[in-house]
Amino acid sequence: MNSIPQKIKIKDIAEKAGVSAGTVDRVLHDRGNVSDETKRKIQAILNEINYRPNHYASALASKKVFVFCAVIPNCEPGGYWELVEQGLLRAEQELYDFKVVVKVYHFDQYSPDSFAEAMEAVLQQTPVPDAVLLAPLYKPKTMIYTKKMEEREIPYVFIDSRVEEANPLAFYGQDSLQSGYLGAKLLFSQCSDTDKIAIFSFFDPGQTLSNQIALRMDGFKSYVSKNNLSCKIVRGTLSANDQEENVSMMKKLFKENPDIKGAAIFSSRAYVVAGFLEKYKLNHVTMIGYDLLEKNVKYLKNNTISYLIAQRPEEQAYKGIKAFSEHFIFKKNVPQINYMPIDILTQENIKFYLEQSQ
Amino acid sequence: MNSIPQKIKIKDIAEKAGVSAGTVDRVLHDRGNVSDETKRKIQAILNEINYRPNHYASALASKKVFVFCAVIPNCEPGGYWELVEQGLLRAEQELYDFKVVVKVYHFDQYSPDSFAEAMEAVLQQTPVPDAVLLAPLYKPKTMIYTKKMEEREIPYVFIDSRVEEANPLAFYGQDSLQSGYLGAKLLFSQCSDTDKIAIFSFFDPGQTLSNQIALRMDGFKSYVSKNNLSCKIVRGTLSANDQEENVSMMKKLFKENPDIKGAAIFSSRAYVVAGFLEKYKLNHVTMIGYDLLEKNVKYLKNNTISYLIAQRPEEQAYKGIKAFSEHFIFKKNVPQINYMPIDILTQENIKFYLEQSQ
Repeated sequence: MNSIPQKIKIKDIAEKAGVSAGTVDRVLHDRGNVSDETKRKIQAILNEINYRPNHYASALASKKVFVFCAVIPNCEPGGYWELVEQGLLRAEQELYDFKVVVKVYHFDQYSPDSFAEAMEAVLQQTPVPDAVLLAPLYKPKTMIYTKKMEEREIPYVFIDSRVEEANPLAFYGQDSLQSGYLGAKLLFSQCSDTDKIAIFSFFDPGQTLSNQIALRMDGFKSYVSKNNLSCKIVRGTLSANDQEENVSMMKKLFKENPDIKGAAIFSSRAYVVAGFLEKYKLNHVTMIGYDLLEKNVKYLKNNTISYLIAQRPEEQAYKGIKAFSEHFIFKKNVPQINYMPIDILTQENIKFYLEQSQ
Repeated sequence: MNSIPQKIKIKDIAEKAGVSAGTVDRVLHDRGNVSDETKRKIQAILNEINYRPNHYASALASKKVFVFCAVIPNCEPGGYWELVEQGLLRAEQELYDFKVVVKVYHFDQYSPDSFAEAMEAVLQQTPVPDAVLLAPLYKPKTMIYTKKMEEREIPYVFIDSRVEEANPLAFYGQDSLQSGYLGAKLLFSQCSDTDKIAIFSFFDPGQTLSNQIALRMDGFKSYVSKNNLSCKIVRGTLSANDQEENVSMMKKLFKENPDIKGAAIFSSRAYVVAGFLEKYKLNHVTMIGYDLLEKNVKYLKNNTISYLIAQRPEEQAYKGIKAFSEHFIFKKNVPQINYMPIDILTQENIKFYLEQSQ
């Protein structure tokens, strides 16, 4: 750690191996036309001197433009997927000097067909993308396209959730089961074991409840059963579009169950429930929610939501694109399964997470 | 975001401005000898085309070796400062191609004189370091050396804590007051407002209680008073070296106060207390602690410690060195005050923080 790095030049290696610099260069860049014996000799010298190729220099000198496509749901302003898009943009900007372009394709998150259309468009584009990052919300459709990409040798990265049967270059996302389990622990740190708890979810017309939300719910239930809690759970179903209907549903639910002490919701839209709790002054209800949306943070700051559990969507997307640059440009191995930390956010620590640039 | 970046060449800018490429180059690198009018004209074109200089290429071409010194306490294996040193090493490795060397100087964290000696050695080394990263544990001594560095125009970065009167290039660390406040909130989410709480601290021979630990304690007390808690607090003083003495002290404390329900310690060595609680089966005592040391994590995993509050020491050091490379090599502005997130760790989410490479 304390010595000045000595830059080792290709011609020094060539001299040591008794071959030409061109031969060393061919071995370094795996361009063939070198005998196995010479290859072994050069490799031994490279290992001995702990040679590290300067991928920066060769990438900067290269004229190759890399096109990485990203397939994600439509970005509502202030919504979850906008944070993902910000991460894509940050990675693209950082890799500007290496001629990386990120092309974003959107789909309707409630429509598997829309996802398929976006994937078709990606695979039909010219030039063929070098790699594809996708949020695999729908497993059967995802499997169709991961198979196609594998046939065409296009590496792909999953973010948000993953399909276990596929073989991505990498996955960046949360362990959803564990994040649901932790949600229950945090809620019951504020509620008693016997309290009545309301769990809210959005009505899903296609019965295609996303993998992630279903797993969080399972994790929550698993905490309750593992700890033998005798809490009572009531369910509330929200509409994605009709806020008036949501208000009447919640009014009815809390009127019929005045003893509700806790509330949980496993999608990113905790603010729909928190807004109701605040408006109707249900201060005695402890609430937990997921994801660092501006609209959720507002209710965390005023303590309507006690705990938010976050999963760094911006970082998932950023790291997903960076995985491609590690693979293609810097020739490094990328770990395949990368769980993001399950961040616990409260009134007290939220501002430091918002300040973090990365 | 969707267009292929067109690389703009200096000769294109020169043509547009009606000057030579050499003149554009002089403006880009601020080398003078160009009339104000020409400068303005070229600057206008650069702004118009949103020109971004390729600092990678010029840094790689440069023969300048950067020597960044780091002044931190001695690293005990598995201790807090070892994590800091890992961050320094990671930054050095990442910046290898840019000829960056990180030289680490250690001092005895219980001796202000030892800190001063390390700083003297840094400032007397040849060549003079380009920049210095330091953990300013002792304010008066720190002020002496920050003044010297300012006189010699050596930029410096604080990690861990900061001295407000100094003017570092950047600071990376925790808001210690707030982390103490949050510690209290988490402890009282498991204890009742009227419980008896034990607070442990290490005996400090020089009465030089570090700024950070003192602030965490203040934050803890501020939570108690703001929420009008009527808890009773008892204090235990630990020895840094004599573990037998610590055991007798804790035996006595818990015997005299069998109604202690909670425990807190504001230094990184929660494991000293947690080990006692586990050995003597004081399962009814809820404990919170600080910092992601292996020895603390062991007790978090088996739930002897309910919550650990962490501050990413590895990342502080990494970002501190990266701040120098941003400043010197990539010519970017670095924000001066950078609070790290106050991470809340539990049995349930710890493994994902340990998995994070950064």
